[in-house]
Amino acid sequence: MKISIPETSQLLKDKDNILLLAHTHPDGDTLGSSYALCRALTGQGKKANVVCDDEIPKVLKFMTVGVEPLLFEPEFIIAVDTANVKMLGDKTRTLYASKIDLCIDHHISNSFFAERTLLDDTAAATAEIVFRLLTEMRIDITPAIADCLYTGISTDSGCFRYSNITSDTLRTAAELIDLGADFARLNKVLFETKSKSFAALERVALNSIELHFGGLCAFLAVTKEMFEQSGSNDEEFDRISAMPRQIEDVLVGAALREQKDGTFKVSVRTNPPMNASEICSLMGGGGHVNAAGCTLDGTLPEAKEKLLKNIEEALIREKKLGVS
Amino acid sequence: MKISIPETSQLLKDKDNILLLAHTHPDGDTLGSSYALCRALTGQGKKANVVCDDEIPKVLKFMTVGVEPLLFEPEFIIAVDTANVKMLGDKTRTLYASKIDLCIDHHISNSFFAERTLLDDTAAATAEIVFRLLTEMRIDITPAIADCLYTGISTDSGCFRYSNITSDTLRTAAELIDLGADFARLNKVLFETKSKSFAALERVALNSIELHFGGLCAFLAVTKEMFEQSGSNDEEFDRISAMPRQIEDVLVGAALREQKDGTFKVSVRTNPPMNASEICSLMGGGGHVNAAGCTLDGTLPEAKEKLLKNIEEALIREKKLGVS
Repeated sequence: MKISIPETSQLLKDKDNILLLAHTHPDGDTLGSSYALCRALTGQGKKANVVCDDEIPKVLKFMTVGVEPLLFEPEFIIAVDTANVKMLGDKTRTLYASKIDLCIDHHISNSFFAERTLLDDTAAATAEIVFRLLTEMRIDITPAIADCLYTGISTDSGCFRYSNITSDTLRTAAELIDLGADFARLNKVLFETKSKSFAALERVALNSIELHFGGLCAFLAVTKEMFEQSGSNDEEFDRISAMPRQIEDVLVGAALREQKDGTFKVSVRTNPPMNASEICSLMGGGGHVNAAGCTLDGTLPEAKEKLLKNIEEALIREKKLGVS
Repeated sequence: MKISIPETSQLLKDKDNILLLAHTHPDGDTLGSSYALCRALTGQGKKANVVCDDEIPKVLKFMTVGVEPLLFEPEFIIAVDTANVKMLGDKTRTLYASKIDLCIDHHISNSFFAERTLLDDTAAATAEIVFRLLTEMRIDITPAIADCLYTGISTDSGCFRYSNITSDTLRTAAELIDLGADFARLNKVLFETKSKSFAALERVALNSIELHFGGLCAFLAVTKEMFEQSGSNDEEFDRISAMPRQIEDVLVGAALREQKDGTFKVSVRTNPPMNASEICSLMGGGGHVNAAGCTLDGTLPEAKEKLLKNIEEALIREKKLGVS
């Protein structure tokens, strides 16, 4: 059942011993929204805890400072920024999946797995919805809560750079700054700092970039050894995958990564009029118009040749390239 | 003489044949503010032109679409986003420096070279001031004007990432989005696209990065040949110079660039408690606490050794490093 912000506010009024569930691979929004709610509810004299199957990333640990896990039997369970139960992780799912009272989320793909769902798929971040909820509940937003919500909004919007933002996103961030969010420090930590492993992966990945078809296609490839040597992770590789398309005049950007089993995970990002999903579907994959993926086997030169052939044909179909 | 927004509004009411001067190395703010004003004034039936000594960068050319240079003898001259007459360039300075009626600016270093100055050094961009001025003048902000002002604000704030923004900056951007600024397209062009020369320079520069003193110092060096081969420019190198400091745990980031005369231009960026200006002043340079520069001569290994020695001593003084 979908419920509104006033209904959610009403619902939470009488609840206590509240457990907040953040999703696995926790990001700024699931943690920022969860810790903002946790701080707000405990500030009202209620008991509340946040749980997450995965460890909290180092740069987001500040949210937990001063929030001590409390001892209680959960009476009301809220999944936060979670589109489906799978995102909760094995442990949390086994313990709580059947008894989730409320889900607060902004994913258009939300599966309505909770008894009640507060969903706004036009919000750039769940933290925007939590801000409105706390305002409706007339709960004071302290600087610590403002930091959590600002982090949620800024991380889910690439610091206001992505097309998912609205003017309301910016107005909410403005309010949070006025309420004491330490945006300068947060922006520096969240958007101006590269982990050593990201810096190492970026270096080898950018080194491998090749331009093809008169610069219409840019392409990078990372082998198992390169990836392991960098000490990097999937989330960081995802960010790297976006880089080939960023080069001026590139219509198709591609990133190949050799996996543990020796196959290649391919990520394709396109600019209009090229269709990433169409290119990947010819290799057994799929996705969105601007971002899609597939898996290729064989050696790196073989995988590369197959991918480039499909990209070349797509460029010819769109009349961006003459028939060779 | 410093004047207020209402005074500026009053002043502009009776003026016609207005010439707007943008500064050299034109950026999103000087051009966005100038073209917003030009479009607003011509929309009122006045004659207005924008002039700039340097060519308009490709990504900012959209601002000029539909703005035809008009023929008139300037009666009122406005310098826009210009802290001093030097920033106007030789040609513009020779023609107009002695008769600038108004300067609209946000630089704290403004030299008050114009007869009247509308200055707000708390604004992240001159475009914020122009937005308030047009609102005061009750001039309709069309989508084309909104695009210009949004570009000014977003480029001068690193898309709202820098510490120079205020909550008002975000609220102004929100208003501009509501007035039709095509922020999604603009963000993609301005912040998600790398020129080929930038991509080439970034690659060789990141390749040259070395970590020193247990990772407290990161360091890149670009030779004359590397720079020329990339086809890059000063503005792009400035952006590259910021990269060493972005690496996690780095307190001192440095970038060396060999100049045409064979000397090395050194840029030092620091995180607290390190003082970039202090480090550079020992080598005959200076600047700000977080960003400073100097020039070194000798070979690259000699320049590097001298710089690293000064950085090492500074780290020892701040007790970040033991005496070697």
